[in-house]
Amino acid sequence: MTNIIRMSSLYAPTLKEDPSDAELASHRLLLRAGMIRKMGSGLYTFLPLGMRVLNKISNIVSEEMDAIGAQEIIMPILQPADLWHESGRWEAYGPELMRISDRHDADFCLGPTHEEIITALVRNELRSYKELPLALYQTQMKYRDEIRPRFGLMRSREFLMKDAYSFHATQESLQETYDDMSEAYGRIMDRLGLQWRAVEADGGQIGGKVTIEFMALADAGEASIVYSDSGYAADTEAGVCIARPTEYKVDGIEKIATPGVHTIDELAAFLDIPASSTVKALSGKDGEGRLAVLFIPGDHELNELKAVRELGGFTLLTDDEMTGFGLKKGSMGPVGLPKAARLVADRSLQGISRWVVGANDDGYHYVGAQLGVDFEIDGWADLCEVQPGDSCPVSGEPLKGARGIEVGQVFQLGTKYSEAMGATFMDEDGSEKPFIMGCYGVGVSRALAAVVEQCHDEHGIAWPASVAPAHVCVIPLTVNDDTVGPAAEKLAAELAELGVEVAIDDRKDRAGVKFNDADLIGWPVQIIVGKRGLEAGTVEVKHRRTGEKKDVSLSSIVELFTFAHKAVRQGVSPLTAYASILQ
Amino acid sequence: MTNIIRMSSLYAPTLKEDPSDAELASHRLLLRAGMIRKMGSGLYTFLPLGMRVLNKISNIVSEEMDAIGAQEIIMPILQPADLWHESGRWEAYGPELMRISDRHDADFCLGPTHEEIITALVRNELRSYKELPLALYQTQMKYRDEIRPRFGLMRSREFLMKDAYSFHATQESLQETYDDMSEAYGRIMDRLGLQWRAVEADGGQIGGKVTIEFMALADAGEASIVYSDSGYAADTEAGVCIARPTEYKVDGIEKIATPGVHTIDELAAFLDIPASSTVKALSGKDGEGRLAVLFIPGDHELNELKAVRELGGFTLLTDDEMTGFGLKKGSMGPVGLPKAARLVADRSLQGISRWVVGANDDGYHYVGAQLGVDFEIDGWADLCEVQPGDSCPVSGEPLKGARGIEVGQVFQLGTKYSEAMGATFMDEDGSEKPFIMGCYGVGVSRALAAVVEQCHDEHGIAWPASVAPAHVCVIPLTVNDDTVGPAAEKLAAELAELGVEVAIDDRKDRAGVKFNDADLIGWPVQIIVGKRGLEAGTVEVKHRRTGEKKDVSLSSIVELFTFAHKAVRQGVSPLTAYASILQ
Repeated sequence: MTNIIRMSSLYAPTLKEDPSDAELASHRLLLRAGMIRKMGSGLYTFLPLGMRVLNKISNIVSEEMDAIGAQEIIMPILQPADLWHESGRWEAYGPELMRISDRHDADFCLGPTHEEIITALVRNELRSYKELPLALYQTQMKYRDEIRPRFGLMRSREFLMKDAYSFHATQESLQETYDDMSEAYGRIMDRLGLQWRAVEADGGQIGGKVTIEFMALADAGEASIVYSDSGYAADTEAGVCIARPTEYKVDGIEKIATPGVHTIDELAAFLDIPASSTVKALSGKDGEGRLAVLFIPGDHELNELKAVRELGGFTLLTDDEMTGFGLKKGSMGPVGLPKAARLVADRSLQGISRWVVGANDDGYHYVGAQLGVDFEIDGWADLCEVQPGDSCPVSGEPLKGARGIEVGQVFQLGTKYSEAMGATFMDEDGSEKPFIMGCYGVGVSRALAAVVEQCHDEHGIAWPASVAPAHVCVIPLTVNDDTVGPAAEKLAAELAELGVEVAIDDRKDRAGVKFNDADLIGWPVQIIVGKRGLEAGTVEVKHRRTGEKKDVSLSSIVELFTFAHKAVRQGVSPLTAYASILQ
Repeated sequence: MTNIIRMSSLYAPTLKEDPSDAELASHRLLLRAGMIRKMGSGLYTFLPLGMRVLNKISNIVSEEMDAIGAQEIIMPILQPADLWHESGRWEAYGPELMRISDRHDADFCLGPTHEEIITALVRNELRSYKELPLALYQTQMKYRDEIRPRFGLMRSREFLMKDAYSFHATQESLQETYDDMSEAYGRIMDRLGLQWRAVEADGGQIGGKVTIEFMALADAGEASIVYSDSGYAADTEAGVCIARPTEYKVDGIEKIATPGVHTIDELAAFLDIPASSTVKALSGKDGEGRLAVLFIPGDHELNELKAVRELGGFTLLTDDEMTGFGLKKGSMGPVGLPKAARLVADRSLQGISRWVVGANDDGYHYVGAQLGVDFEIDGWADLCEVQPGDSCPVSGEPLKGARGIEVGQVFQLGTKYSEAMGATFMDEDGSEKPFIMGCYGVGVSRALAAVVEQCHDEHGIAWPASVAPAHVCVIPLTVNDDTVGPAAEKLAAELAELGVEVAIDDRKDRAGVKFNDADLIGWPVQIIVGKRGLEAGTVEVKHRRTGEKKDVSLSSIVELFTFAHKAVRQGVSPLTAYASILQ
């Protein structure tokens, strides 16, 4: 039995041209390398090479789950609506939830996540604190009806996900499993060969209070993150913001005419000061419909989620509503606002004593307005979206910025689902308590795309050996030749015998076609077998990632691979091990 | 790192009582053994033990697919309706197809099978006869909106399926892959430890002309099959019927009064002859709406599908329609029927010269009616559903009957989908031709249920070692004891080290609880470690399937397993190898 991939029979229809609708490198290259095909908007088929990579990633994830004692199960994709009514998410989830009715008009959804169903699974059966903690996981297609699916596997409607759920009697026990999971996620990111950061994140629709996202760093990432060398990192949507406003020193308050100035940028330019020396005002209604005016450094943006949390709800006023409250758009400031308004300022503004702000008078601003003298506020809060240059909340140094692809996320759910769905256990003291829960997800198909985003060049994909469709591709320059073809076959068979995953390009194509496809598909190592080399007893070994090439004697190549392969089995990263062949 | 299953932390909530709604042994025992749980009508979760078995079956299927060169892919579960409109199945499939609309009101279905989507996948990309044949497969959840889901995994709405599709330039090439697939399916059935038969079948909604079903023999099976020692076997819905009517010898035709006789059974009883000596008449309309009367042996049932094929359509007349045509229900026969009627008789009736039939006169029948003298017919055909006792079409010997669970099916599709969807390739002669296609399915989750139907007793499941959740369960009779617990742990670790899959029942429960659960869960081998045995240097080994028990010295047990495990690696069936430990 052979486990050699033969390019002559492999279904990998490579494309010479870039597909027109593929914006991202991962999308473009996975299509071009014949690894995926689009079957509909946000719906993809994984062809044999893509499937091999997907299986490898999935296996790595499963191994790390098994290693921390999580137990594999599989729950239905088709979830009864009843359970979602119990949790309240049937209404709350919105149009991204794909809903379906059966022939008896019973409602179901296609699971985007499985908190409801797993809570229903264990309630009445997981009864005692003695059986806790328990962690269960599954790997399964998930569904999200994206309004505009795009970026290939990055934002598709059907995607492969590993989701895990844990049940606990105490917060300490949850924290322990949460930490185990976080470490396992870190190992998964490492084993996928990803450059990554664990960032503070926001719980979103899942509802966790404590949560970390595992971000693969990539310019194409949809998420914006900040980090410092202290190890701190955060999603800009979630991170604490410590802005650094620049004080514009003046002696007293002065109202100045600012004709034609409506925005912060115009104000900064008019006064020839940095935007960080100005204060932006935003008006809205709080959770009870009362007027609230928020003040933030001029060079920052409001994080509405933070405002909502601070004020128990927050919606920006429309122009008409502003007029109704007597507010002047483009000239709002703390001096002389309606008495009923609640004034909250970003904490970073504590650092400056005199503000450059609107004068609540069209065409005028104040310079040098002083808190406690010229105006009062009702409170301080963290209101801004963090951005590069802000202070790291751990070390104080300026934060750096990067973009990331969210590959994994861990959540401490608490009792949100167990309370809503009446899932309780009997604790040591005999009392019934709701389970304390955690949930943990890895986007398996998205991870595949993330690897490509990080591991590619202008010629194609350059897979890390841990997830490559095979480790080595043997490329005979000709197949009709009496010596080259058989020598390549012999070498491929010897390597396969060692347990190395081998492909052989036994097609009757020109060498150029084979080289291009090998670079496009991204086998970590290419071994080129040619007539001239064979006469000298050598083959050429090319390391895809570095492009390095080296002539290696046929007699030593198997030995080199034996060594590398043994190293891999002993825990050396395959990338390092196979790269060593070139040294 | 340990791969030992610890019962103390395993999520396997076993049940003492039989669940009320579980009719079949597989349904009842999989629930009781804590392997599956119902989440909705026809929707199941596989718990950790069930998941392990499901993965093992799935791996066996994949290995056999890989071995014959089929390439693994994964296609979307969510299939665009457009493709189903192209094939014509969007309308034809009926209410079993689960349909869903997205937020933009585009229609999709949840795939029950993937002929449309795979044909769309390869069209325009698989272009040349040189790239053929090609076989692709996937393992994935499939959907069928059963009107009444029941029998647990046997007839569920979401089920795991391996489906494969092949593309060919010639019928010979299709036949070759079809044969390879059939052989692979046979090996799969063998490796699952199933008693099975490959039977002639009907193509149903998939639309194949040549097709074989792989049936696991089980009384609980929904399919009825016939077979003979010649190797012939058929689904009774599809098999050729060669009935054996018994001639009732009389000299001439006689019309006899049969008061109160309306059915074949009543007629046979009245005349004191076997039902096989009577001839049953059935009236209907053929494909063009004309009257047709069919004659079959009295002890057989009409196979309506055969009638439809023979007559280009066939629907039985209602009582009113019969009256309209002047037909007498309960007394129909070939003598004196309306001239316009088309008379077709089952071929087996060629074997008798004088018929016992209705006289087309209420309360009267003919005995001894003679073809060619008393009446004529328009033709002969195969019309009956085959039943045990009929002649084997290969050997002529009487067929035996059995019930079966359809675990797999292979189809020769021909060009049905490629023609409808315009999927063509360029043949050697430069002409465009539609692909000749095959498709092949294994019900993975149903196979799991089939194994349980065959492998269980009153105490629970008795898994074949090839698919068991683990090979061995080590059962320490006490865990608090200074010697028993540690000895059991040491033994489990030693076996695990060998690569044997080991569970250990390290719960603090009574021995009786452990024994019951071990028998219920069905580990192939139990090793019972007790204080008294240890003092004599022995443990008790129990073979679940046979119930045999034997004391084995602790010093030799690991050696025995080493031997058995090596045998398994060398291809000996695990069942045989592990059973050998008891010898």
